[in-house]
Amino acid sequence: MNEEAFRFAIDATAGAARAGVFTTPHGAVPTPAFMAVGTLATVKTLDPRELREAGATMILANTYHLHLRPGEDIVRRMGGLHRFMAWDGPLLTDSGGFQVFSLETLRQVSEDGVEFRSHVDGSRRAFTPERVIAIQRALGADVIMPLDHVIPGQADPATARDASERTVRWLERCLTAWERGPGSGDPMDASAVPGPRSPVPGPPPAPQTLFPILQGGIHAGLRRTAAEAIVGMADWVGYAIGGLSVGEDKPDMYAMLDVCDEALPRARPRYLMGVGFPEDLIEGARRGVDLFDCVAPTRMGRTGTAFTSEGRLNVRNASLRDDPRPLDERCDCSTCRRFSRAYLRHLFASGEVLGLRLLSLHNVHFLVSLMGDARHAIVRGTFDAWSRDWLTRYHSGTVSVP
Amino acid sequence: MNEEAFRFAIDATAGAARAGVFTTPHGAVPTPAFMAVGTLATVKTLDPRELREAGATMILANTYHLHLRPGEDIVRRMGGLHRFMAWDGPLLTDSGGFQVFSLETLRQVSEDGVEFRSHVDGSRRAFTPERVIAIQRALGADVIMPLDHVIPGQADPATARDASERTVRWLERCLTAWERGPGSGDPMDASAVPGPRSPVPGPPPAPQTLFPILQGGIHAGLRRTAAEAIVGMADWVGYAIGGLSVGEDKPDMYAMLDVCDEALPRARPRYLMGVGFPEDLIEGARRGVDLFDCVAPTRMGRTGTAFTSEGRLNVRNASLRDDPRPLDERCDCSTCRRFSRAYLRHLFASGEVLGLRLLSLHNVHFLVSLMGDARHAIVRGTFDAWSRDWLTRYHSGTVSVP
Repeated sequence: MNEEAFRFAIDATAGAARAGVFTTPHGAVPTPAFMAVGTLATVKTLDPRELREAGATMILANTYHLHLRPGEDIVRRMGGLHRFMAWDGPLLTDSGGFQVFSLETLRQVSEDGVEFRSHVDGSRRAFTPERVIAIQRALGADVIMPLDHVIPGQADPATARDASERTVRWLERCLTAWERGPGSGDPMDASAVPGPRSPVPGPPPAPQTLFPILQGGIHAGLRRTAAEAIVGMADWVGYAIGGLSVGEDKPDMYAMLDVCDEALPRARPRYLMGVGFPEDLIEGARRGVDLFDCVAPTRMGRTGTAFTSEGRLNVRNASLRDDPRPLDERCDCSTCRRFSRAYLRHLFASGEVLGLRLLSLHNVHFLVSLMGDARHAIVRGTFDAWSRDWLTRYHSGTVSVP
Repeated sequence: MNEEAFRFAIDATAGAARAGVFTTPHGAVPTPAFMAVGTLATVKTLDPRELREAGATMILANTYHLHLRPGEDIVRRMGGLHRFMAWDGPLLTDSGGFQVFSLETLRQVSEDGVEFRSHVDGSRRAFTPERVIAIQRALGADVIMPLDHVIPGQADPATARDASERTVRWLERCLTAWERGPGSGDPMDASAVPGPRSPVPGPPPAPQTLFPILQGGIHAGLRRTAAEAIVGMADWVGYAIGGLSVGEDKPDMYAMLDVCDEALPRARPRYLMGVGFPEDLIEGARRGVDLFDCVAPTRMGRTGTAFTSEGRLNVRNASLRDDPRPLDERCDCSTCRRFSRAYLRHLFASGEVLGLRLLSLHNVHFLVSLMGDARHAIVRGTFDAWSRDWLTRYHSGTVSVP
């Protein structure tokens, strides 16, 4: 599907790891790549120009949050998500499944979909497979995701099977809705709602593609069965791996990635949802994952924790009050090129917004660069040695932690 | 004083208004100019690179706040304020007089100085004329200010006379301390305190200059007497006008500016402290003021109010939810070039930090550009017509206000 607008080329491999290029209507993404998360159509505290400078190629936004605020119809009428948030690069929207299944006020899962209460105003809402496709069509990201049934990491096999199988059935409905095209009679389809059109001129909507989500918890059999069903359903542009990094042990996650690597077509990009931390990115890339996303770099940045090549650093630490060094002497981000730890500590001690920005920017740059370095090592054939050295230094723990 | 490092040239005049260039060791400032306020060594929410792009040439920081956090000794050891906050342009520190006299916990003014309690930790502190010079020498801004006795705008003549005369006497002590140089025995002189030096290499400290502050409330006689004393004291590089925009009526402020214009040397730059709003900047420039500062653009930006050429706009207004226009169609700032009112409203409705940034940036750019346009009009000989047209449009009130 969408073979003209979307392509994936593999330049080099190192075991299961691959150096690829994922091409979308809004540009190319060298892989493996880390995608920063712009939940509400903004990567928290950062300007899209800064993301570009930090090396970000593809970012994502959240269907659940944008559906509640400002609503997909506003985004569509403002020219779509790219234009709305002034990001002209590749963009992905997740389906909102993860958020809905995380809600404490979640009411009911049925075969039809999920009913829930908005965390913003308590209003009753419903997501169905058809609905999340319609919402994401209105938002207009390059890559969109189907509604999936997300469960905790240590769920028992019966629960995991039920959720995984429902995710596959919902995927079939998503695919049908998606292939039917916009405005085809779904009363919930926002793109079919008549209303005043934006006076902003713009190009026609760019093609989108739908990545299926592979669930199955930490159960190899469920993962294999689901992969078989999904792969048999269509020739997908790419595949997402969901339901990992949700509380299970690391070895269990890595084992599932090995299973997915074997079960999914190697010629297509794989996206590991909601992962993660530097060590997870390296271990994921080693197991054939091409795309990652996580809120960690911006969330940690806002609480004063920086990734560094020697571990995490808490800039609130009093020992930094007169430390003239940058966060990470190996880093060439615009924060590290200009500002001392002493200054960053001062900003956090004083509650200044610039501190949140500078740390978030550094952390995003850190993960984006990490995947750039991994790609370079795969191409040069040095991935094993590079990743071993990198992880050893990262775990050397010479910097202060909270 | 400092005739080599600091210069002021007047390119054109229009009545009392002047188009000048104020040269400092860190670069030239075309005047009239608006200076953004970076209280705690950061113009709130903004990156110094953004300030540059917005056209800012000179900014200021606050002695009171930086003395409390992180302390002038830290700033000095980190290479001085320019390096600390990564702003390599002209920089001014105010004396902290305004902040100290605004404190509710202010204890006592004596001839020696002011005792007060820190708003951060309640600790007892004292500012003397000598102390604020030592602090500002450690901070290292291009232009520094003497301790002044600030009073409310409607103060009676006796109170105003007392404060104005004390400000002159304190100025003499500031001048003596300043001419004596650093480390000359003042036990409170931070630059004389031994301690570990920063390993960061850097150039030797650049020359600084001290602007006197003219007080006198809204009493022309007091202003003239103080001006005479100050002008007789030294051949100052520039002059600051304090104690205005502190609650008095606008006609009173404008009348005082006329008095100051006559009483102060026309060959030197005049800095009107803490002013202000667009109409005040235009009326100040008309009366021979060259430099302005105010927290308004960033404070308003953080609460969701934007300056526009047709008045103020509250971006929280519900009518903006699907407004595809920029904040101000006449504006070419990086916010207006990229983002719609609908997006900015969404950011504020969602509590996103990027909204604070984008509005603060627009507002700073707005005032900086306003003074750039005023300069252009003075040079072209069209200042009167330009200012009349500008104010008429600004007060046309076609945009929504809170």
